[in-house]
Parts: sequence; C-alpha cells; structure tokens
Amino acid sequence: MQPGAELMVLPEMFTCPYDSELFPEYAEDENGETITAMSSVAAELGVHLVAGSIPERTPEGIYNTSFIIDDGGEVVARHRKVHLFDIDVEGEITFRESDTLIAGSSVTVTETGSAVIGVGICYDMRFPELSRMMALGGAEVLIFPGAFNMTTGPAHWRLLVRSRALDNQCYCVAVSPARNPRASYVAYGHSLVADPWGSVMVDAGSSECVLTADLDMEMVEKVRRELPLLRNRRPDVYRWMEGADHE
Amino acid sequence: MQPGAELMVLPEMFTCPYDSELFPEYAEDENGETITAMSSVAAELGVHLVAGSIPERTPEGIYNTSFIIDDGGEVVARHRKVHLFDIDVEGEITFRESDTLIAGSSVTVTETGSAVIGVGICYDMRFPELSRMMALGGAEVLIFPGAFNMTTGPAHWRLLVRSRALDNQCYCVAVSPARNPRASYVAYGHSLVADPWGSVMVDAGSSECVLTADLDMEMVEKVRRELPLLRNRRPDVYRWMEGADHE
Repeated sequence: MQPGAELMVLPEMFTCPYDSELFPEYAEDENGETITAMSSVAAELGVHLVAGSIPERTPEGIYNTSFIIDDGGEVVARHRKVHLFDIDVEGEITFRESDTLIAGSSVTVTETGSAVIGVGICYDMRFPELSRMMALGGAEVLIFPGAFNMTTGPAHWRLLVRSRALDNQCYCVAVSPARNPRASYVAYGHSLVADPWGSVMVDAGSSECVLTADLDMEMVEKVRRELPLLRNRRPDVYRWMEGADHE
Repeated sequence: MQPGAELMVLPEMFTCPYDSELFPEYAEDENGETITAMSSVAAELGVHLVAGSIPERTPEGIYNTSFIIDDGGEVVARHRKVHLFDIDVEGEITFRESDTLIAGSSVTVTETGSAVIGVGICYDMRFPELSRMMALGGAEVLIFPGAFNMTTGPAHWRLLVRSRALDNQCYCVAVSPARNPRASYVAYGHSLVADPWGSVMVDAGSSECVLTADLDMEMVEKVRRELPLLRNRRPDVYRWMEGADHE
C-alpha cells in the first residue's frame, strides 16, 4: 500500500468463489470472522475500508453485502446489492444470483472524513438511476466492488466506470478480483479509477496487485462548476423514473 | 444516400451558425422555408426525416427544435431541447444558450414505421434521465442531433453515445455538423451510431459526409432478453429522481 492511503477498497465476494451455489456455504454475519478481521485491520492501519462484498447471512436470507468500516474499526454503513445479477447471454455466460441471494433496497451514501462516498456492487453499476441517486445524495466518489466476466468485462466495464464518473461528475472506483482462468467464473479484473471528467486514472490490468490513486475533491467541485450538469438537470420533466414502469 | 434508407437524420442547428446571438435572426416556425423544404424532401424520397434542429420561433420565445417528419411529408412530432447548454470551462469554452433560447419540457418518442425512436438534442444526451425515459417509453433508437465542441467532443462524445446505447439497450445515433475550423464554434464532428451492446458501428470522422448504417430491431430485442437491464430495474428503490433535488 502507498503510505498515506485513507480509504481502501476490496473486490466483490472476496472471501469465496463467485458461484451462486457456494454463497450459502460462505455466508457470515457482521460478527463473523471476516468482518471482525476487517475491523481490526481498519483500526490498526487507521484507514477507512470498503470491505468489498461477502455473502451476508441474515434471518430473512443472504445478501451480497459491502460493509463500510471507519478508521476506528467500526461498521458505519453497509450496502446490500440492489440489482441481482441474472443474465443469460447465448453461448457465452449464464448466471443467476437470485437462485440463492435476496436483494437490498437502499441507496448507500456515507462520509469517510475525507470524502462522501456512495457504494454499489457490480451489476448495480449498470443502472444509471442508482449512481445518480448517490450523486444527488452528496457522493463525490462512487465505489463499486465488482466482478465482471470475460464477456461483459471487455465489452462494458471501462465504458460503465467512465460514464458513471462523467455523468455524475464524481470519481468512480471499480474494484475487481484478479483474473483466475481456472475459476468457474473468470473475472475480467481491470480495477479502475475514473475522474470526474470521465478519464481513466489507473487500471490494474488482469493480475493481482495493489492499485493506488490520489482523489482530489476540488476537481469534483471544479468540474461541477464549469459544466454544471447536476444543476442543469430538469427534475420538473423527469417522470416514469420511479413507481410504474412503462416498458 | 445509400439506396433504401428509411430514416434520415440531420445535425443540430443545420440552418445557421451555432451562435446564441444569431439564433433569433435565423429563427423560423413550422411553416417557414426550412421545414417546408424538409417536408417536400421527405415526401419526395419517401423517407422519415429527423430534421436536425433549427431555432424555432414561437409566441413564447425561441426553442432549439427538432422536427420529425414522416414519409408523407407531415410533421408528426417535434422535440424542443430540454437541457439548455450553459457551460464555462476555464480557458477553453464558454457558451450560454439560455441567453436567447427557452427550454422545452417534453420527452419525445414517436414511431417511424420501422422503429420507435426517441429524439433529444445535443446537451440532452448528457442527462441519463432523458434517455432512460425514452427507452421506458418504448424507444429502440435514440437520436441526438448534436454539436459538441473541440473540448467536450474528444473527451466525451463517443463515451456518451456508447453509454446511452448500452444502458438502454437501444441504438444510439448522434449526428454532428462537420468540423469547420473557421467557425466561431468549432464542432467536433464524428457523427456516430452505437448498437445496443454499446459498440460503435460507424463514425463519420470530422469531414462532411453521408453516413449510413443498418439498424436491426431484432438485436434490441435479443440484447434485452439476454441481459435484461430494463426488466431488472428497481423502480421501488428509485427515489430523488424527480421533484425535489438533493444536491
């Protein structure tokens, strides 16, 4: 780790294979060994930690959950993946999270001391509504632990990270497991950080590594002042965005 | 023109320089010479025409308006730019449409016979809400006459066209004037068509040309079936998207 990092982010499902059938086996609650260990690490290093995601066991079912831990080791927020990943691309990839997981229903925005962050998980990144809500809720940095695959990764990962950053004039941090060709689900890798102008700052490639970037909250403010997208929105015109669907 | 084209699209403000001070001078209404001529062309060729945009004179003020004309020469819809372009990028570009134009307040989706199209204009493309509303309103093709400049064009044009297509699993057609280095406002050019998977099909470069592409509505249906983004939305979770702003 670069000395001085204030915020660390781990990838999606970093404690288990990305495999719907195995999520129940690896599920833990907030007091389980993973989050206990992560809290100790955060406190010991004095950093804020977005602890990727794990299968979270609860009385109502298992969520794909990102625990957000402050620099004192306290769990200050959690994001439960809102959009479950159910996909069936002919001859390429089929996956159904909804076989074993249930979906969260909240938007997650919290303060780290140096920035306001919004947290989503992987497939959540595909829905512009969620990123927009996080930005309107004050987020300056959008964080997505995620694990795109070898079909959707090359086609969409970079495009999505850049466009969420650009549209919302936030930093966008997307953190993937490294690529393991022997896994049942092969992650694309390529953890990325894009700046509020939509430019990629750093790219982890496909191998294991520790990636660092300097995020400057003054750039968020400058871009939003010069190209005032959030101010130029037309909420008086926006309909159909919630409630009844017009598909 | 490629023989057999069913839909033609012209660029933003194709009858005048892109210059706020000049819009009033060039403004016309639906019965003016431009739309009269465009109606004749559409009827003569038997094509649907999205007539870029012109400054539209009305009793309440001047809009930046795209007239949509059917293959019989009839104006069947019009889109009045909803998001006015007011930008001030330090040392690069300053422009204020709101000095002389007023904004529309409607979302424009209409049928051409071969596809359902949604029409926005230039800066409208920057707001994911509008494209989403068009897609939920049934659009299979998003059409944006637009004129990005030499600052925002290289940085954002391609990214925006691709991401609106990808997020909404539509074709996205963005049509710019060619680049004229002697104009007061130098357009980036690069008219593009992206497919529902977010891939660029054709790119006009910076010079004048006629660009053609084959849009296959079955691909819209296939991508939406395999990666069911519109169905996996969570309108029950989406709040803050309209009405009160939480900036």
